Amino acid sequence: MAKGCLIVCDGNNGAGKSSVIRAIEEFLTARNHPVVITREPGGTRIGEKIREVVLDPETPELCDTTELLLFAAARAQHLKEKIIPAIAAGKVVVCDRFTPATVAFQHYGRGIALDLVRSINGFALEGFAPDLNIILDVDPEIGMKRVASRGQGLDRMERQKLEFLSRARDGFLRQAEEAPDTFVVIDASEPFDVVSGNVLAVVANLLTEKGIG
Amino acid sequence: MAKGCLIVCDGNNGAGKSSVIRAIEEFLTARNHPVVITREPGGTRIGEKIREVVLDPETPELCDTTELLLFAAARAQHLKEKIIPAIAAGKVVVCDRFTPATVAFQHYGRGIALDLVRSINGFALEGFAPDLNIILDVDPEIGMKRVASRGQGLDRMERQKLEFLSRARDGFLRQAEEAPDTFVVIDASEPFDVVSGNVLAVVANLLTEKGIG
Repeated sequence: MAKGCLIVCDGNNGAGKSSVIRAIEEFLTARNHPVVITREPGGTRIGEKIREVVLDPETPELCDTTELLLFAAARAQHLKEKIIPAIAAGKVVVCDRFTPATVAFQHYGRGIALDLVRSINGFALEGFAPDLNIILDVDPEIGMKRVASRGQGLDRMERQKLEFLSRARDGFLRQAEEAPDTFVVIDASEPFDVVSGNVLAVVANLLTEKGIG
Repeated sequence: MAKGCLIVCDGNNGAGKSSVIRAIEEFLTARNHPVVITREPGGTRIGEKIREVVLDPETPELCDTTELLLFAAARAQHLKEKIIPAIAAGKVVVCDRFTPATVAFQHYGRGIALDLVRSINGFALEGFAPDLNIILDVDPEIGMKRVASRGQGLDRMERQKLEFLSRARDGFLRQAEEAPDTFVVIDASEPFDVVSGNVLAVVANLLTEKGIG
């Protein structure tokens, strides 16, 4: 039977996650790998409802503890209902954001103690971990400009200030340093062809390692 | 300055929580105590949105872990935004459901390990605890009949089976046994006048103890 895996694409907003995920999808589809593209918070009916609550720009009073618990609630549902069954069915799951974002934003950004963030994440994950976390690294000022240039309304997380995003960026990089076996940092300030080329090389490598490729 | 406190009214559905809470409100108002009536999940704008997600009967796929995290998310917001400020302002807060329900339903009912339920609750509570937990105890069969006789649609938690509700009832009673200083069990199978009389005696006693009465 085919082997599945979970590839996470994470990093600050405006780093180009969506474009990179589309490139991964095309790459896998062209090689006949069954692929599932999904996102957090969301990915399920319940998760998308939680997403509406947690990203709603009209509720700035949402407190940090509630935010962390809502992200974890969406993750628990996503994992059980969608990610684990897809991996069991031999699919490559590509997820826009996952645990790296929670550690970066809720610990490094908001200042919630790392052991609490890890323990809430751990409760939602029940021992599960992604096979690969691709961190798209970009200067937060450039990221913010890219997000603003989309001309869409900003969600609650996209309204964060530069200082918060700088701490989150450090948090993404620190996680990658601490777990080099499952994290790869890609410089997302390069032209898109270079970025996607670097990402696809890493993905191809993972598939080979896993005996999927 | 006036002293505030939190009185929780909990127990299986159909035990008469709403009527008892109205009686407490009238009792306190008649004595000029500033009172806030609230509920879980809910009590805040964000909490009520979470309530819609967690009690929605149209999403039976909601998993136990997600359920626990959503109740905790609503509680964290409720506490920080409404309960703690009201108590600080010298109000008596009366809350329909709180931590006793989470332990009864998610541990005794669903079977999530007690230390996990306590640790998630603890994260949401940050050291806070109710001054009094009034458990309205009723035979689950009688409770279910009362809920059905309201002629309203049942929410996701009200659709639980008798066996689940029996385990939850045991869970409410067990918590009361283990913490007699802050729990009181009231037999809710008695006529309403008797039930409310017993509840109001307990409330009056608490107010005297706290120097509020």
